[in-house]
Amino acid sequence: MSFDRLIKKIDEMNNPTVAGLDPKLDFIPQFIKDECEKKYGKTLEAAAEALLTFNKGLIDALYDIVPAVKPQCAYYEMYGWQGMRALYETIKYAKSKGMFVITDGKRNDIGTTMEAYAKAHLGNVDVFGESVAPFDGDALTVNGYLGSDGINPLLDICKKDDKGIFVLVKTSNPSSGELQDRKIDDKSVYESMGEMCENWGSDNIGEYGYNCVGAVVGATYPEQLVELRAKLPHTFFLVPGYGAQGAGAADIKGAFDENGRGAIINSSRGIMCAYKKFEFDEKDYAAAARKEAIRMRDELNIVR
Amino acid sequence: MSFDRLIKKIDEMNNPTVAGLDPKLDFIPQFIKDECEKKYGKTLEAAAEALLTFNKGLIDALYDIVPAVKPQCAYYEMYGWQGMRALYETIKYAKSKGMFVITDGKRNDIGTTMEAYAKAHLGNVDVFGESVAPFDGDALTVNGYLGSDGINPLLDICKKDDKGIFVLVKTSNPSSGELQDRKIDDKSVYESMGEMCENWGSDNIGEYGYNCVGAVVGATYPEQLVELRAKLPHTFFLVPGYGAQGAGAADIKGAFDENGRGAIINSSRGIMCAYKKFEFDEKDYAAAARKEAIRMRDELNIVR
Repeated sequence: MSFDRLIKKIDEMNNPTVAGLDPKLDFIPQFIKDECEKKYGKTLEAAAEALLTFNKGLIDALYDIVPAVKPQCAYYEMYGWQGMRALYETIKYAKSKGMFVITDGKRNDIGTTMEAYAKAHLGNVDVFGESVAPFDGDALTVNGYLGSDGINPLLDICKKDDKGIFVLVKTSNPSSGELQDRKIDDKSVYESMGEMCENWGSDNIGEYGYNCVGAVVGATYPEQLVELRAKLPHTFFLVPGYGAQGAGAADIKGAFDENGRGAIINSSRGIMCAYKKFEFDEKDYAAAARKEAIRMRDELNIVR
Repeated sequence: MSFDRLIKKIDEMNNPTVAGLDPKLDFIPQFIKDECEKKYGKTLEAAAEALLTFNKGLIDALYDIVPAVKPQCAYYEMYGWQGMRALYETIKYAKSKGMFVITDGKRNDIGTTMEAYAKAHLGNVDVFGESVAPFDGDALTVNGYLGSDGINPLLDICKKDDKGIFVLVKTSNPSSGELQDRKIDDKSVYESMGEMCENWGSDNIGEYGYNCVGAVVGATYPEQLVELRAKLPHTFFLVPGYGAQGAGAADIKGAFDENGRGAIINSSRGIMCAYKKFEFDEKDYAAAARKEAIRMRDELNIVR
């Protein structure tokens, strides 16, 4: 079960952190952008090359202390198919360094179309008899608004190819309550979605008690985090909202089970842009990212 | 307002159809695949070239009688970044022929990340001072599970760049009711989502009374289609489910307003794979698609 692999890595490194790779050009040091512009001009190729160079520097600085990376698809699509090539190369590079890759795409559709997304991001596709992995992440974030028809096509690939998914349950943003907190028969929408996660993953439970269907639960709602941890004992959590979105280590505590397992905490800007916060020279962005990753690790380990 | 452009095209062609471009390799005639395999081998490049060749043939056969195309992102992502390049080229080609392009991505995220998707698929991105349109569709399908934080970033771009969005409201699949039909204070989730659509688009209403925030409402639920048409007078509908998913022309009737406007009906496999149904030689797949598009147009015009 894919999350067993992730949990083992978290245990080995004693670090429940995933580094978000959301490399918009604004976040990338000028010297990298200058090099790429010089080489490829004011083009999407140049932007994509800057993304990839930045990511490789971050991965080199983090792979021995951070178990996973989470590239956010939107920031690659924003630079066109050239950006999607940078996503592919980033995933390949992170995996070559032993990192677990969570592709943050929040994909959703039905039947054969959802199967196409599953093959795109987690599985293999048949190309004239050859089996090719188009993006090859270890896990994918998905949106369950369409119900089981949108999730079932993923479950087969999760089993067959040892992959996992994270379903949006209670997201970290201020307006997440507009739909997710509304009550259906005394149960909130997020609670119903959480129960569906437990159910979808119930026949693929791994050695730590977690199944292949995880949930996205924001750290910005610490009470709901505690509530959902108790109600969803087999559901592994991906927790956004730490750092730039305002949640601190104390808010995170509820995400973990009694063994300090059961969740991985995301930091994107906090790590990527640490060079701005610590007033490092931008050439040392990778060293700054490592410093912040160590600080975050130690902070999380106090509360879990 | 972007849907005014679409409605004008529908009126001119007297055809409320959008042709879905979901070109998985299984749907593509063998002679196209053979040519591409010969040229590029058993690679994603070859698959992507086959997608694009197939699409161009369909567009050439349809652009003077069908107002819009809807490429489904999943079937391009399935063939990697090479497939995404085929998506980019498909959109560019369809627009060069005057077609309205609805990118079916069901994207969703929050804040600056959703803004990145909006720029990717509808807007422009700044690349070292140059403004570049990465994919440049006219409209994008989105998922509103995250609430206003996921929709607001799109509204600015819709206004500024004359684009539109379609929010998933009541989807066409069998399990759509698992969440969408559940009741919140006597209102179904899909009804609440529909009301949010009316609200999100309320300050950008065009000359036909529709705003820039449309809704996806499946033809496979004809009663809900009637209900939602009545309750959402300013929301333009994108209606999947006709043909391969089982809905017929009579089921579609409720999607239209009293002027026969207010909706566009999708057919993907029905048009793309018409050459299989009509027993055309596969080399005549484009002529078969045109024949089916004319049949569908005439059938829809009887009921609307």
